Amino acid sequence: MAKRNTKPASGTRDFLPAALLRRRAAIRRLEEVFEQHGFLPLETPAFERLETLEGLYGEEGDKLIFKILRRGDISEQDADNLADLALRYDLTVPAARAVAQAGLQHNFRRYQIGPVWRAERAAAGRFREFWQCDVDLYGVGSPAGEIETLLALHAGLQALEVGDYTIYINARPLLVALCDAFAIDSADRKLVLIVLDKLDKIGFEKTAEELKTRATQEAQNAKPIIELATRLTPDFREQVLALEEVAESDSVQLLQEIQSCLTRGVQDLPAVVLDPLLARGLDYYTGFIFEIRAEGGKDAIAGGGRYDDLMKAVSGVASQVCGGSLGLERILALDEAELPNTKQSDNKQGLQQTQQQTLHITLFDETLRAQTYQLSQELRGLGLAVFTESGGKLATQLKRADEAEHRWCVFYGSDEAQSRSLTLKDLANGEEHKIALDNLEAVKKLVRGT
Amino acid sequence: MAKRNTKPASGTRDFLPAALLRRRAAIRRLEEVFEQHGFLPLETPAFERLETLEGLYGEEGDKLIFKILRRGDISEQDADNLADLALRYDLTVPAARAVAQAGLQHNFRRYQIGPVWRAERAAAGRFREFWQCDVDLYGVGSPAGEIETLLALHAGLQALEVGDYTIYINARPLLVALCDAFAIDSADRKLVLIVLDKLDKIGFEKTAEELKTRATQEAQNAKPIIELATRLTPDFREQVLALEEVAESDSVQLLQEIQSCLTRGVQDLPAVVLDPLLARGLDYYTGFIFEIRAEGGKDAIAGGGRYDDLMKAVSGVASQVCGGSLGLERILALDEAELPNTKQSDNKQGLQQTQQQTLHITLFDETLRAQTYQLSQELRGLGLAVFTESGGKLATQLKRADEAEHRWCVFYGSDEAQSRSLTLKDLANGEEHKIALDNLEAVKKLVRGT
Repeated sequence: MAKRNTKPASGTRDFLPAALLRRRAAIRRLEEVFEQHGFLPLETPAFERLETLEGLYGEEGDKLIFKILRRGDISEQDADNLADLALRYDLTVPAARAVAQAGLQHNFRRYQIGPVWRAERAAAGRFREFWQCDVDLYGVGSPAGEIETLLALHAGLQALEVGDYTIYINARPLLVALCDAFAIDSADRKLVLIVLDKLDKIGFEKTAEELKTRATQEAQNAKPIIELATRLTPDFREQVLALEEVAESDSVQLLQEIQSCLTRGVQDLPAVVLDPLLARGLDYYTGFIFEIRAEGGKDAIAGGGRYDDLMKAVSGVASQVCGGSLGLERILALDEAELPNTKQSDNKQGLQQTQQQTLHITLFDETLRAQTYQLSQELRGLGLAVFTESGGKLATQLKRADEAEHRWCVFYGSDEAQSRSLTLKDLANGEEHKIALDNLEAVKKLVRGT
Repeated sequence: MAKRNTKPASGTRDFLPAALLRRRAAIRRLEEVFEQHGFLPLETPAFERLETLEGLYGEEGDKLIFKILRRGDISEQDADNLADLALRYDLTVPAARAVAQAGLQHNFRRYQIGPVWRAERAAAGRFREFWQCDVDLYGVGSPAGEIETLLALHAGLQALEVGDYTIYINARPLLVALCDAFAIDSADRKLVLIVLDKLDKIGFEKTAEELKTRATQEAQNAKPIIELATRLTPDFREQVLALEEVAESDSVQLLQEIQSCLTRGVQDLPAVVLDPLLARGLDYYTGFIFEIRAEGGKDAIAGGGRYDDLMKAVSGVASQVCGGSLGLERILALDEAELPNTKQSDNKQGLQQTQQQTLHITLFDETLRAQTYQLSQELRGLGLAVFTESGGKLATQLKRADEAEHRWCVFYGSDEAQSRSLTLKDLANGEEHKIALDNLEAVKKLVRGT
C-alpha cells in the first residue's frame, strides 16, 4: 500500500503530549482565574443550526463559516440549501443561544474555553481550528460589565505570565459620532468601520488608500469618506477626541469611568488607552469595544465589547451583555516560536517532570508476565505512575525507557522472584536499589525523593 | 422580533455549570488514572480530510459521518464531491493518523478524551455529539496491549465509581473459526458478524430471525447461515467453545492468558467472560475484541480491541495496536437519570461547594464603585473567589446572591468607607462580621472556615 497523507487537514494541528500538557496547564490556570472572578463554566456543542449563526458576523465572517452537508439523499436539494448545520464560528453566539434557552440572560456570568472553526486561508500562525477563552456577563449594564470583563481578562493574562501589553478601549457610538462629524452617510458607515479596523495592521497610509479606493467604488457618497481619509495621520486620534460630536458623547464619560475604576482597582495596571479609531470587525457590538495588544505584536491577543442587541437577534429576547475573549494561540505564541510540533524529538520537551516519576517496569521473561503485572498493579495502588513493558529484548526495553525519559527502571527477574524483591535502577545516576516486595513503600519514597 | 428557536441542534446538548463541573471532575479523574498507567495525552482536530475517514467504519458507519461542505463556489461540483472534510467519527482513526505522522507508531501509549460526532437518529440517551475516553498502545503486541488496555479502562471505571460490571472478551479469529465450522462462505462472514453484534441488545430469538431473513435475501449461500441461526440458543456459547475449529485456535490460548494475568494482577477483578459470540460493529478489528457491560445495562460502557491493520490503512505503514474506549455519557448516565439540563433551577445542583466560598460584593451606591472594585481586587489577591455586583437596588443584589447560592455577602457603604472597614454577612445564619480593611485576612479565615 502506498504511503498515505497523514498530515492533519489544512489549518488544523495535532497536539503531541508536551505541547498539549503546556496548553492544558494554561487552560487550567485560566479556569481558576475566571472562577475566582465569579464566572461559571458553560459549554455548547461544536455545531449549531446554520440559521443560528448566519447573518451575525458580517459579510466577511459569514463566508468563513464551515457548513455541514445535510445527511441522506441530497440530490433534490437546491445548491444553497445543501447545509443545515455549521461549526461554531465563535463561542459568543452559541453561548447567547444557550443562555437564552436556559433562561439565564438576566443574571449570569459565564466563561468558556474551547475551539472554534473558521475557514480562513491557512497561513503561519493562522489556524482554522483555534481556541478562544471567553468571559461574558449577561444581564449586566455599564460600566460593571465592561470593568469586570477587563479585570478578568487582565487577570488571565497575568496568570499566563504575558509581559507588557496595552488595553485599547473605544465605543461604537464614538465611531458613529466621528462619521457624523464628517457627514458620512449612515449607509456608508459599515464600509468605513471595516477599513478602519485594519489600521493597526496595515498603518495609516494604506488604510487611507483603501478608504479612498473603496469609497470611490462602493460608497453612496464618497466625498466625505475621502475627506476623512486625507486626515488619517498619527495625530488624527487626538483631533477626533477634540471633535465636538465625540467630546460630548456619553460614551466618553463611560470610557473615562472605566479607566478610573481600573486605575484605582488594579495595582499592576497596564496602560488603558482611549483609541477613538479602534473598530472591531464583528457586526454585533453596540457600545464599548476593546482590544488588548502585546508589546510589539500587531495582532490583538484579546478583544471584545458590549453587544446588547445580539441576545435579541439570537433569542428574540433583549438583554444587556458585555464580554471578551483571549486568543490562546496568540498568547502561547508570544513565548514560543511555534507551538505545534510533529517531530518525535519534540515530543520529549517539557515532559521531563511527568516522566521523572514514572516507573518503567521491564519484563524479564514471558513466564513472569502475570507476576510482573501483579507487581505493576501493587505499585499503581500506591499512587505511582507505572509503564509496564510489553516484552522483547531487555536492551530494547531499556531503549524504550530512555526514549520515554522514564527515570526509574524496575527489574523483576527469576533472582528477584526467588528472593521476593525487585531491583529499582535510577537511570539518572545508574544506582541500583534492592527492595523487598513487602516494602514497596520504599520504592515510593525513592521515586518521590522523600 | 419573534421568539427564535434557542434549542441546541438535534442530538447535541448545552452543558450548564453544575452538569459541566460534574463531567469535568470525571474527566480529570480519568486523565489521572490513564497517566498513572503510563499513557500520555494526545489531541487531534475536530475534522479530518474526508478521505482519511471514509471506508474504515463499515457501510453503516460511513453513512453516519458528518461531512463538511467545500468552501467557495460549489455550483460546478459533482453531487458526490460536495464535501472535502468530515467531523471525526471516533478518536481511533484520527489518532492513528497523527501517531503515524509523528513517527510514534512503534512505541507510544496515548490517551484522549474528547467529543466525536455521528449522524445517528437522535433518541433518549443517544447523542450526535458524545465523548469518548480512549487508551491505545501503539507498537505493542499480544498479550501486553490487551492486558494494559483492560487494566487502564478497569481503573478508569473504578475511579468513576462504576459499580458492578463484566468484561466480555473474544477474538475475531474465533468468529472466523465459527463461520468455518458451519462452512459459511467467506463473502457472507461480514453479514453474520453484523447481525451477531446485535445479540446482546435484541436477544437470541430476534437475532436468529434476522440472520435467517438476511441470509435468504443477501447471502451468497444462505443454507449454512440458516443452520447457524437455528442453533442460536442460550447454551450455544458453550457449544461454540467446544467446536474443534474454535477450541484449537491460538486465540483461545491468548484469551486464557489475558484472563490469567488479569486474575492475578487485579485484586478487585470483575468477571472476565470469554464470549465466543461477541462481535464488534467496527470493521477495523483484527484480533482480540472486548466489551464491558454494567450490571443490568444493555449497552456496552466500554469496548475495543486489537486493530493491527488500521495503521497500515491510514498511513501505509503497519504497526501493532490495541486499545479501547470508555463511553462517558453511558457511564455518567448510570447514576443520573439524565445528565444535561436546561432549566435554571437545575443549574444550582452540585454548585453548592463552589459557591459556598464565593464572596458576593454588593455595590452600595455609584459613588463607591471605584472603591468597591479596589476592595474586590484586594480580596481576589488573597486567593478568594469574588463576584462583584453591577448595582441596582440592594434587595435585587441580595436576590442575585441568593440565586447564585453565594453564602457570603460583603457590604461596603458610606459608614464602612468612613470607618475603613467592611461588613461580611453569612447568609447561612444571618450573622454579620465587621472587619477592618487592613485585616482582610480575617475575611479569608471566616470564608474558608479556618
